[in-house]
Amino acid sequence: MPSVSEFLIERLENAGVGHIPGVPGDYILNFIKKLEKSKIKFVNTTDESHAGFVADAYARLKGIGCVCTTYNVGTLKLCNAIAGAYAERSPVIVLSGSPGLKERNEDFLLHHVVKSFDNQQKIFKNITCYSVILEDPTKAGYQIDEAIEAARHHKQPVYIEIPRDVADLPIKYDVYRQGTPKSVKTDNENLKEAIDEVKLWIASSQRPVILAGVQLTRFGLGGKLVRWAEKNNIPMVTTLLSKSTINEHHYLFAGLYSGNHTSQPEVKELVENSDCLLVLGEMLTDIALGFESPKFNKRQTIECSIEELKVRNHSYQNVCFTDFCEALFKQEIAQKSSQKLPAKKIQVFTVERDKKLTTQRFFDRVNCMLTDNMAVVADIGECLFGAADLTVQHHNFISPAFYSSMGSAIPGAVGVGLAKPSVRPIVLVGDGAFQMSCTELSTLISNNINAIVFVLNNKGYTTERFLLEGKFNDIKNWNYHRITDMIGGWGAFASTESELESAIETALKNNTLSVINVSVDQNDTSNALRRMATDLAKRIN
Amino acid sequence: MPSVSEFLIERLENAGVGHIPGVPGDYILNFIKKLEKSKIKFVNTTDESHAGFVADAYARLKGIGCVCTTYNVGTLKLCNAIAGAYAERSPVIVLSGSPGLKERNEDFLLHHVVKSFDNQQKIFKNITCYSVILEDPTKAGYQIDEAIEAARHHKQPVYIEIPRDVADLPIKYDVYRQGTPKSVKTDNENLKEAIDEVKLWIASSQRPVILAGVQLTRFGLGGKLVRWAEKNNIPMVTTLLSKSTINEHHYLFAGLYSGNHTSQPEVKELVENSDCLLVLGEMLTDIALGFESPKFNKRQTIECSIEELKVRNHSYQNVCFTDFCEALFKQEIAQKSSQKLPAKKIQVFTVERDKKLTTQRFFDRVNCMLTDNMAVVADIGECLFGAADLTVQHHNFISPAFYSSMGSAIPGAVGVGLAKPSVRPIVLVGDGAFQMSCTELSTLISNNINAIVFVLNNKGYTTERFLLEGKFNDIKNWNYHRITDMIGGWGAFASTESELESAIETALKNNTLSVINVSVDQNDTSNALRRMATDLAKRIN
Repeated sequence: MPSVSEFLIERLENAGVGHIPGVPGDYILNFIKKLEKSKIKFVNTTDESHAGFVADAYARLKGIGCVCTTYNVGTLKLCNAIAGAYAERSPVIVLSGSPGLKERNEDFLLHHVVKSFDNQQKIFKNITCYSVILEDPTKAGYQIDEAIEAARHHKQPVYIEIPRDVADLPIKYDVYRQGTPKSVKTDNENLKEAIDEVKLWIASSQRPVILAGVQLTRFGLGGKLVRWAEKNNIPMVTTLLSKSTINEHHYLFAGLYSGNHTSQPEVKELVENSDCLLVLGEMLTDIALGFESPKFNKRQTIECSIEELKVRNHSYQNVCFTDFCEALFKQEIAQKSSQKLPAKKIQVFTVERDKKLTTQRFFDRVNCMLTDNMAVVADIGECLFGAADLTVQHHNFISPAFYSSMGSAIPGAVGVGLAKPSVRPIVLVGDGAFQMSCTELSTLISNNINAIVFVLNNKGYTTERFLLEGKFNDIKNWNYHRITDMIGGWGAFASTESELESAIETALKNNTLSVINVSVDQNDTSNALRRMATDLAKRIN
Repeated sequence: MPSVSEFLIERLENAGVGHIPGVPGDYILNFIKKLEKSKIKFVNTTDESHAGFVADAYARLKGIGCVCTTYNVGTLKLCNAIAGAYAERSPVIVLSGSPGLKERNEDFLLHHVVKSFDNQQKIFKNITCYSVILEDPTKAGYQIDEAIEAARHHKQPVYIEIPRDVADLPIKYDVYRQGTPKSVKTDNENLKEAIDEVKLWIASSQRPVILAGVQLTRFGLGGKLVRWAEKNNIPMVTTLLSKSTINEHHYLFAGLYSGNHTSQPEVKELVENSDCLLVLGEMLTDIALGFESPKFNKRQTIECSIEELKVRNHSYQNVCFTDFCEALFKQEIAQKSSQKLPAKKIQVFTVERDKKLTTQRFFDRVNCMLTDNMAVVADIGECLFGAADLTVQHHNFISPAFYSSMGSAIPGAVGVGLAKPSVRPIVLVGDGAFQMSCTELSTLISNNINAIVFVLNNKGYTTERFLLEGKFNDIKNWNYHRITDMIGGWGAFASTESELESAIETALKNNTLSVINVSVDQNDTSNALRRMATDLAKRIN
C-alpha cells in the first residue's frame, strides 16, 4: 500500500497538477521531498502569500491548482489569495503540513503553534468549500478524493492538512478501494423541462444575447458555447471578470459590458434591450454592473450558474450548471437571431516621437502588441480598468476583477508560465502592486518565463486619489526597472512614446524577463478609470 | 459628540499609539483621512503582511501597536503576523474597514466580499483575544474601550472592524460616559498567601535563580525585576524569546538558557540545579527548552505567568501576573544568595584581512559593533540562533523566537524605528527572509530610519538543509545590496573579513539605510544552529 503522501501525490498527478508552488518549512519538508520522485515539480516562491496567487492563476488555466506550505507561518500567509480564489471560483488545493500527532503531547509549546492544533483549519473553513485534517490513514484516502472532487465540483479552494507523522503511514486497503465520492446529481426531469422552456423562449425571441460568465471558463465550456452561438447566430458579451471567456476577435463577440461604465453604447443597448438575455455562469458584481443595480430585469433573463438556475422569476432545483450548459449547447434553435453588432475597430498605433506618455496611449500601444500566444495578466486599479478595452484571445486574460486583491499579477504570471509554457505573460501592474510582489519576478527568471512586465508608474494609489485624496495615496517612487540589477533580467525606463517603443521592441526580441518602468503623470488616468472612480467616490463620501 | 472614528482616534492616542502602519483601501479610506487631523501618523507600508510585523515590533517596544487595512484583501494579509503577535503576546489593535451597513443590501456582489460580511471577523476570532464589529454607535464607545483594555490586559491582538458608514456616525452620549471596562481583579488573600510562601522559600533556598520571561517585558517589569534581584543578589537568565528582558551587561545576568543547547555549561547548571527557580512570565517553548522536556522539575519551581501561578505542584487562582510581580519585587528576602556566575567574556575582534567570511566570525564582528543605542532585529533561522550569543542592552532585541515566522525582521525594523527614533536598528536577515520582505526597506528610507541591514547570504534555507536536503532548499542568489539601485540607500558586498570591515565602517558613518550582502558558503553555519538542527532533524525523519 502507498503511504498517505504517496497516495496524495498520485491523486494530484491524476487530477492534472504538474507544478506546486510554495515555500518549504519543517512541518511539510518530508512531503516536499517526496515530490522529487513524482511528475510534479515543486516551485519555490519568494513568499507564501504570492504562492497562493501562483496556484490560483494556474488553476484558472489548468482546471486545478495546488499550493504547499508549512503550518501557520506559511499557510496563514495564503489566506488572502485563497479567499480570492474562493470568491472568484478557482479550484486551488491548499496542502499544509502540521505538527505530528505524536509530538502534540509534549510538555512544551511547539514552534509555529497558535492557540490549538486545529486553529488553522478553523480559519480555512471560512475560505474553502471543504477542509480536512488527515489524522487517520484509514480515512485519508477517501478524504483526499472527497477534497479533490469538492474542488472540481465547486471550483473553489479546499484545505488538506497533513500531520507530519501521518504522511508516511500506509493508506489502509479497504478505504483505498472505496473509489471516488460522487458529486451532486442533476434531476433529469427538471433539466428536460428547463431546456424545453429555454429553447422555446430563445426561438421566439427577437434579440437573444449571451452574457458569458467566468464560470464557463472554469468548467472549460467556452469553446462549446461559441460553437453553439455560431450555429444560432447569437451575439455574446462578457464582463471584466469573465473577459477572454470568448476570443474577442470572434465576429459574434460584441464587447465588454459594465453597466453605465460600458465603453461602447451598442454593447450596453444589446444587453439591456435584449428580450432573452442568457446570463450563463456570470457573477453579478459591483464592478461588472458599474456599481448600480442590474439594468436588465428578471423577466428578460435566464440565469444559470453554479448556484442556481432561474428562468424569469421561477427557478429549477437540482440542475447542475455544467449539465444545463452541455444540454443547451446541443439544441438547435428553430428561429435564428440577426442582430447587428458593433463594428470591430482595427487596432492601429502610430508613435508620436518624443511625446510624453499617457496612460491611455500606453494601453493603446499594448493592444497593438498582443499576439495569440500572449496572455495578459492584469493587477488591480488602473491596470485592470484600462485593460478592459484590450482585445484578447480566448482564455488569455487573468485578473481578480471581483475580489480585487492588489499584488496578484506578478505571481499570476508565474502561474500562467507554468500552466502554459507556450504563452508569454504580459503583466500590467501598478507601482503599488509592484511594491507588494515584485520579489516574485525572481521566480519568473528561475523558471525561464520570459514575461514582459509593464509597471504603470503613476506615483501612487491613483484609483484612490479619485476617491479621497491625501498623503496616504503617495508611494515612494522607485527605479522599478532597476530591480534587474538585483535579480537579473532586462529593464528599461519609458516616459515618452519613443522610449516605450524602443523598450517594447527590445523586450519582444529578448527571451528573458523584461521590466518596463512606464512613467506617467500622477493624475493621468484612462477614461475608464475616471468614470468608475467617480461612482466609487460617491459611495465613500 | 465625536463620531465613532474620532472617538476611536482619541482612544488610540490616549493608549499611546503614535504611528499606524498599513495600506489604504476604499473601505477604510475615510478613517485614514481622519488621522491627518490627529497626532497619529499613518505610515504607508508596501504590503499589509509587513504592516502586521511593523505593528507587532512597535507594540513590543511601546506597549501598544495598531495596524489599519481595508476589508479582506488588506486585512486577511495580516493573519500570519497577527497569529504571531497572539502566540508571543504582543498587543496589536487590528483596525479594518468594511462595507457600509447600508450598502450590504444591494442586489449585486460587492468587491472584496467573501462568503458573508462577518467572515473576516470569524477568521480573526481565532487569532485575537477580543473581536468586534462596530455596527451600533450606541455601543461602539464601550466596545472600543473593551477592545483596548483586552489588548492591554492579555497582551494579545484585538480586532475592531468599522463598517465605513458607521465611522462618521456620532457616538451616543450615555455610553460615552460609561467609562472604561474593568479588567480582571486579583484576589488579595490569595496573593498574600502566595507571596508569603514564595518569600519563605527563597529565603531558605541556597541556589535561587530567576528565569526572566518575555511577559515581564510585555508589562514593562524588567527594570523592577533587576532592582529586586540586585537587592537580593539573585542571578538571572533569559531564553531566546525573552532575550534582552535584562541588560546583558548586568553583573547578575548569567546568560541565555536553552536546555541542552545552552552554549555556556554554567548557565545550564545554574538553572537545572537551582533549588528555587523563579520562572517569571516565561513561555516554555520547544526552542527555549532545546526540543526536550524541561530539565527542571516542578518541585524546584515557582511559575508565574499571564496564564497561571504555580508553586511546586499547587496553584493559586485569581492572581494577576502583574500584581504578583509588583508585590514580589517589594519583598526583602531574609537570607541572601551568593552564587557564582559565569565570568563575562570581553568582546574582542581582530580582522583577519582577506580571509573568507564565515557565519560565526560575522556574528562575532557584529557583537563588537553593538552600542547602547542599537537594537538587534533578528529574523528566523541562522540569524536567530546565531544572534543568541550577541550581548545586547535591555529591551534591544526583537525576534519571533516562538512563532518563528520568516520575514518579520525588515518590517520589524520599521516598527523599532518608529517606536524608538533614537535607536538604530541592526537587522539580521537571511537570504530567504530578505526575499520575503525586502520591499519594506523602502519604508525605512521614507521614514528616515537609518537601519543597517545584514543579509546573511548562505544561498538557501540553510536551517532546512540540516533537516532534510533537496533542491527545494536552494534560493536564487540575488545581488541583495543592489536593491539600493531601485529604492535608494547604500549597499555593499562582503565575502571577506576586510570587505565586511570596510562595509561596517561606512554603514556606521552613513546616516541612511545600509544594506550589506554578507556572502558565506552554502553549508557554513554557526555552532548554535548546527546543534539545534541535529535535534530538529530527529523529529522529522
